[in-house]
Amino acid sequence: MAAGPDPGFFQTIYTSRALRRFKPLPVPDEVLFQVLDAAIRAPSGQNAQDWRFLIITDPATKSKLQEWALEGWGHYRARFGDDAAIDALPRSQRLSLRSVEHLAHHLAEAPVLILVLGLAGRHSTPGGSAFPAVQNLLLAARALGLGGSIFNLPLGRREELHELLSIPANNQVYCLIPLGYPADRQGPVQRKPVAEVVFDNRFGERWAFAEKQPPEGWQERWLRPE
Amino acid sequence: MAAGPDPGFFQTIYTSRALRRFKPLPVPDEVLFQVLDAAIRAPSGQNAQDWRFLIITDPATKSKLQEWALEGWGHYRARFGDDAAIDALPRSQRLSLRSVEHLAHHLAEAPVLILVLGLAGRHSTPGGSAFPAVQNLLLAARALGLGGSIFNLPLGRREELHELLSIPANNQVYCLIPLGYPADRQGPVQRKPVAEVVFDNRFGERWAFAEKQPPEGWQERWLRPE
Repeated sequence: MAAGPDPGFFQTIYTSRALRRFKPLPVPDEVLFQVLDAAIRAPSGQNAQDWRFLIITDPATKSKLQEWALEGWGHYRARFGDDAAIDALPRSQRLSLRSVEHLAHHLAEAPVLILVLGLAGRHSTPGGSAFPAVQNLLLAARALGLGGSIFNLPLGRREELHELLSIPANNQVYCLIPLGYPADRQGPVQRKPVAEVVFDNRFGERWAFAEKQPPEGWQERWLRPE
Repeated sequence: MAAGPDPGFFQTIYTSRALRRFKPLPVPDEVLFQVLDAAIRAPSGQNAQDWRFLIITDPATKSKLQEWALEGWGHYRARFGDDAAIDALPRSQRLSLRSVEHLAHHLAEAPVLILVLGLAGRHSTPGGSAFPAVQNLLLAARALGLGGSIFNLPLGRREELHELLSIPANNQVYCLIPLGYPADRQGPVQRKPVAEVVFDNRFGERWAFAEKQPPEGWQERWLRPE
């Protein structure tokens, strides 16, 4: 892969959203390598770098994971009630849930799944040495035109998963990331405003500067046509 | 803050390293807001966004955290032995440890500390809904010329920390991030190569494509003079 123009940093940050439907196109090795080479630049506790990434493209393995994803979806969707209850959810939550449902039914069609692992018990702050790399991975995917998300519905059967992929007992599974060229658009993400989640020197104390900013934040400063 | 030219995405990824010594310069509110507005674009489980960020600039609070950092450093350094033992470590590990030691002694001089919190027990994947935002925060800081790192030595005294900052019992502390304009250079990070940490469809199975790439990865494709 020739290095194209470097995509903008804030453009990438502000347009990285969970994408769960993929076009039937393979992800070239060059693109996958770039995504993973970006992932491993993240920090880890004591720079241990005990992260391991398992690329899953084998059709039989993906089918098995899809089977478990549907099982996981069955448990998960029960929290929301029947189809009518899901249809009554607020729009963004409903769309997100429907895309999770879609992915559970089509996981085996995702071009690549990446399973993220690390040494069990190695770090005192759980996930603090794996999820920075996961976020680098998701951002780099978006910068290269891929879509992805953290998708843990297929991970319920721990022992069988370890056996299926020959994962040693001293490793733990952090998450699964299905990747591919997205069928839906990349795009800005809406979040609770900074003023609601950032406090000034004491929990609960509002930050005066943030209260004067637009609730949607500063993304308009950075978004540009693609 | 006017939006400057958007810094490159891969340039930012490949030059974000832990920086622990700061110039005695304040961080403007505009810069801090941009960093936090980037942090909250990260994903979280079920889009819960239960992350909370506490900006700490109060001198008395920073002094107390420095006191606890020195306590934490005392315990931590005992693992390595005396000064001579630390001096005998490989260069990169020694430099890193010395910069941790420096920060423990000068934490109160860091312009801003950011404490990252979230609802305890809210998510089944520990840290998976906090550290993606932490990584966004660190990358955005680097993109804007700041330096930082995850620095948890001061967090040993859980109850006293909750009391000092009025943190409710239903919140847990994920990490502390000291931020400021760095006295040391930003720069590329060396990591174990992709070929060593990425497997092909089965744990332990080397990925042929990665084995053919340079061990230092592809950062040279993206680094440009600053």
